[in-house]
Amino acid sequence: MAKNEKKQVAAITSMDEDFAQWYTDIVKKAELIAYTSVKGCMVIRPYGYAIWENIQRILDGMFKETGHENVNMPMFIPESLLQKEKDHVEGFAPEVAWVTHGGSNRLEERLCVRPTSETLFCEHYADIVHSYRDLPKLYNQWVSVVRWEKTTRPFLRSREFLWQEGHTIHATAEEAIAETERMLNVYTKFCEDALAMPVVQGKKTESDKFAGAVSTYAIEALMHDGKALQAGTSHYFGDGFAKAFGIQYTDKDNTLRYAHQTSWGVTTRLIGAIIMTHGDNNGLVLPPAVAPIQVVIVPAAMHKEGVLDKANELYDRLKAAGIRVKLDDSDNSPGWKFAEYEMKGVPVRLEIGPRDIAAGQCVLVTRHNGEKTAVSLETLEDSVQEKLTVVHDGLYAAALENREKRTYQCKTIEEMNDALAHGDGFIEAMWCGDEACEDEVKAQTGAGSRCIPFHQKQLSDTCVCCGKPAKHMVLWGKAY
Amino acid sequence: MAKNEKKQVAAITSMDEDFAQWYTDIVKKAELIAYTSVKGCMVIRPYGYAIWENIQRILDGMFKETGHENVNMPMFIPESLLQKEKDHVEGFAPEVAWVTHGGSNRLEERLCVRPTSETLFCEHYADIVHSYRDLPKLYNQWVSVVRWEKTTRPFLRSREFLWQEGHTIHATAEEAIAETERMLNVYTKFCEDALAMPVVQGKKTESDKFAGAVSTYAIEALMHDGKALQAGTSHYFGDGFAKAFGIQYTDKDNTLRYAHQTSWGVTTRLIGAIIMTHGDNNGLVLPPAVAPIQVVIVPAAMHKEGVLDKANELYDRLKAAGIRVKLDDSDNSPGWKFAEYEMKGVPVRLEIGPRDIAAGQCVLVTRHNGEKTAVSLETLEDSVQEKLTVVHDGLYAAALENREKRTYQCKTIEEMNDALAHGDGFIEAMWCGDEACEDEVKAQTGAGSRCIPFHQKQLSDTCVCCGKPAKHMVLWGKAY
Repeated sequence: MAKNEKKQVAAITSMDEDFAQWYTDIVKKAELIAYTSVKGCMVIRPYGYAIWENIQRILDGMFKETGHENVNMPMFIPESLLQKEKDHVEGFAPEVAWVTHGGSNRLEERLCVRPTSETLFCEHYADIVHSYRDLPKLYNQWVSVVRWEKTTRPFLRSREFLWQEGHTIHATAEEAIAETERMLNVYTKFCEDALAMPVVQGKKTESDKFAGAVSTYAIEALMHDGKALQAGTSHYFGDGFAKAFGIQYTDKDNTLRYAHQTSWGVTTRLIGAIIMTHGDNNGLVLPPAVAPIQVVIVPAAMHKEGVLDKANELYDRLKAAGIRVKLDDSDNSPGWKFAEYEMKGVPVRLEIGPRDIAAGQCVLVTRHNGEKTAVSLETLEDSVQEKLTVVHDGLYAAALENREKRTYQCKTIEEMNDALAHGDGFIEAMWCGDEACEDEVKAQTGAGSRCIPFHQKQLSDTCVCCGKPAKHMVLWGKAY
Repeated sequence: MAKNEKKQVAAITSMDEDFAQWYTDIVKKAELIAYTSVKGCMVIRPYGYAIWENIQRILDGMFKETGHENVNMPMFIPESLLQKEKDHVEGFAPEVAWVTHGGSNRLEERLCVRPTSETLFCEHYADIVHSYRDLPKLYNQWVSVVRWEKTTRPFLRSREFLWQEGHTIHATAEEAIAETERMLNVYTKFCEDALAMPVVQGKKTESDKFAGAVSTYAIEALMHDGKALQAGTSHYFGDGFAKAFGIQYTDKDNTLRYAHQTSWGVTTRLIGAIIMTHGDNNGLVLPPAVAPIQVVIVPAAMHKEGVLDKANELYDRLKAAGIRVKLDDSDNSPGWKFAEYEMKGVPVRLEIGPRDIAAGQCVLVTRHNGEKTAVSLETLEDSVQEKLTVVHDGLYAAALENREKRTYQCKTIEEMNDALAHGDGFIEAMWCGDEACEDEVKAQTGAGSRCIPFHQKQLSDTCVCCGKPAKHMVLWGKAY
C-alpha cells in the first residue's frame, strides 16, 4: 500500500449473506449518499447525484422529443386545495408534512409540502385552459416531494425524494389514454436502453391504483434478491380531477366539456433499482449510459518515463470522443485503485504501463465480468465504445436471465408457496378479479399483485385462489 | 385579424407611466408566470422556465469547469441544527416556514423548510472531512428555498424561489477567499456574456452582510427605472461555521485545524433583472444566450405556393446550425404574430414571403431596435448568428449607457438628493465606515449602501454624511 494512501477500500457484506446490508454498504461505500440528522432524509453525494443528472438529461430529452415542456409549481399546497378531489386527499393526507407557521406567526390555513402536485396543476389548468385551442398541455417538472414514511431506506423509500412528475391535460379521453401509454413506453425504453433493466409493463389492480386515478399503469422490475420493484407509473385520471377543479373548455362545436388528464413519474428510486439489478459483491456496477465515469484510466509503474504522458494523451483522446473518462494519477497503489473503481461500478477500466506502451496497446477490463482484452492504441476510441456496448448488453442479458430464472407459473396457492420456497421471484398466476382473492394470495404467500401484464397468457381458466373463472393473468411478487 | 385568432395580444402599461404595472403586465402577458392560491408563490410557466433552464445550463457548465460538483441536501433543517451558528439563526429564524406535523402526528422537533443550506452542508462536512486530503470540497446544489416574506413580487421577492447555492470548504482562509472572489467573477462574466447586463462588483458593508459571514461580496445591476438590484452574492465565512459545527481536519503536519468555508448563490431573480434591464413598452426583450426562442420565422402570404416549404427549409437549416428557432405557421395573422413575439422578447424575427423567395432573400428584424435587414438565403446561418451578436451587444451597450447616465458622484447629502430628484440611480459617494452614517444617508435620501465597489475612486477625503475622514467610496441606491 502506498504511503499516502487515503483509506483502505473496505470490503462489503456479501449479498448472499445479507442482501439488505450489502445494499446499505454499497450506497455508503460507493459514496452515493450520506445520512443526516433529518430522519428519513439523505444527502445525495456527488457520485450519486451525477447518476441522477445523467438519468435526468436522457429522460428530459425523451420528454421534450415527445412534445413536453417543463414548468415549476410551488412546493406548498393549501389544505383546502388538497381536499378538492376526495380520493386523492384520502390517499395522501395521512402521509404529508404540514407547515403551520411562517416565522413566528401561525398560518391562517396550514400548507402541506407537496407529496405530488395534481392539485396544483389542476388549479393552474383551471386558470389557463378555456378553449380546445388551449389543449393539450404537456407539462413536466423536476422537483422533490415529501411523504412522511415510517420506515425508510436510501433511494427506495425516503421522506423526501427527487422525481419528475408529468401532468398533461387533453380534450378527449382517447388522447389522454394514449398519452398514459406513450409515457409508459418512454419509461420502458429508458429502463431498457439506458439502465439495461428489463421491465414488465402492466396495469395496476383497483386496490393498487394511484389515489384519484381511473387506471394506473406501471413497469415492474425484478431485483437480484427476487423482490419486485415498481420502476415507474403512469396514471389516467379521466375527467375526475377536471370535475373537482372545474376545468372546462369550449369545444369546436361551442359546447363546454371537461378535460381529461394524466400524470406519470419516476424517482431517484431508479438508482436503487440500478444497484439491486446490476451490483455484485465487489460493489456497484453501472450501466454505461448513466455512469458518471464510463472509463477510468489506471496507469501502471506511473513513475516510469512516458507512462503519465501516454495516460494523459489517452485521456484527451477519449474525452474528445465524448466518453466520460477519468485518469487516476494519484499516488494510491494500482490495487487500491482497482478496488475503488470496482466499488464505484465504473464500466471499463483501462490499464496502461511501460510494456503496453512499447507494444502500442493497452488493456481494457470490463467491470461486470472482469474480462481483460488487450487492444491497439490506434483504434482505442472504437474499442472503448465497443466495450461499453458489451457491458450494457451483458448487464441487460444477465438481468433478463435472472428474471426469467425467477419467474414461476403457478395454478394454485400451494404451487406459489412451493415456488417461493426456492427464493423470491415473480409469479404468473390467474386471478378472478376479486379483491378478496388478491388479499388472500398476499396473506398466504407474502406476494402481492404487482400488475396485470399487458402481455397476457392463459395459464388456466380458474383463479389461483378461489377457483372461480379467471379474468386476468396477474404478476405477483414481494415488493420493495 | 384571422378568424381563428386565439386571442388578441393585449397592450401593456407603459413603463414611464407605471413601472411596477409594466413589470407585472410583462410577467403575465409574456406567460412567464401565473399566480396560485399559495400566497407569495407562483407557477413558473414553460416560457419562463425555459429561460431558467438556459441560465442553469450555462452556469452549471461554468461551475463544473471551475471544479464544482452537484449534490442534493434535504429540504428540511431541524430547529436545533439551524441554531448551531448564532448569527445565522438570528438572520433566518424570523422568516422560515415551520413543519410541525408529519401526517397526523406532531413532530418531536419542528423542522424548517431550508431558507439556505449552510447548516446542512456543515453537518455533512463534519461527517466527511477529516484529513487535508479531503479538502477542498467544491459543492453546489440547484434547489428551491423558502423565506416567509411579507410583500412579494414575481421573480424579485417570493416566498419560494429557485436558486443554486454553492458551498465550499477549504484548508486555508486564503483558498476560501480566493474561491469567494472566483465565483463572484463567474457571476460577473455570466451576467455580462449571457445576460448582457453590466454589473458593479463590490463588498457589502458590515450591516448588509449575510447572516454568519465574515464578508459578503455582491454584484449590483441598475434597472431601467434607476433602482438597484443585487444579482448575485458570494460569502466568505472564515472558520466560524467550522467552529460551530466542529469541522476539523488533520493537516500535513499532523495538527488539527478548523476548515474555512464559502457560499454563493444566484436565483430566479435574474429573470426579473433581465426584464427590468432590457424590456421595453412592447414587452420582454431577451438576451440571445438565454432566449428560449432565438429566431421566430413568420411567413407572409403563407397560403401561396412554396412559402411554407421554404419556411420549413429555413427552419431546418437554422435548427441544424444549433440555433433555437420556431416557425409559427398557425393561422394567426402576421400582425398578431409580430406583436406576440415582440411581447415574448424573441431577439430576431425572420420574415419570408413570395417576393423574398423570388429574390433569394429574407428579412431579419432585431427585437431591441426594430431594424430590418434583407439578407441572402445563401448565407442565412451566418447572418442570423451575426444578428444575435448585434442584439447581445446592443442590449449590453444600452444597459451600460443607462447605468452611466444614471450614476452620480456626490459629495454631500444635498447633492445626493438633488441628483435623485431627476430620477433614481446609483450614487457614488465617500463614507467614513460608521454604520450610523450609513443609516443616516438612507433615512435622508432613501438610497442605501449597495456595496463598496472593488474599483474605488477617491472622490473626496470626507464622509458624505458626517464630514469625518472617508474610508471607502460606497455605491448607494434604492434597492429592489
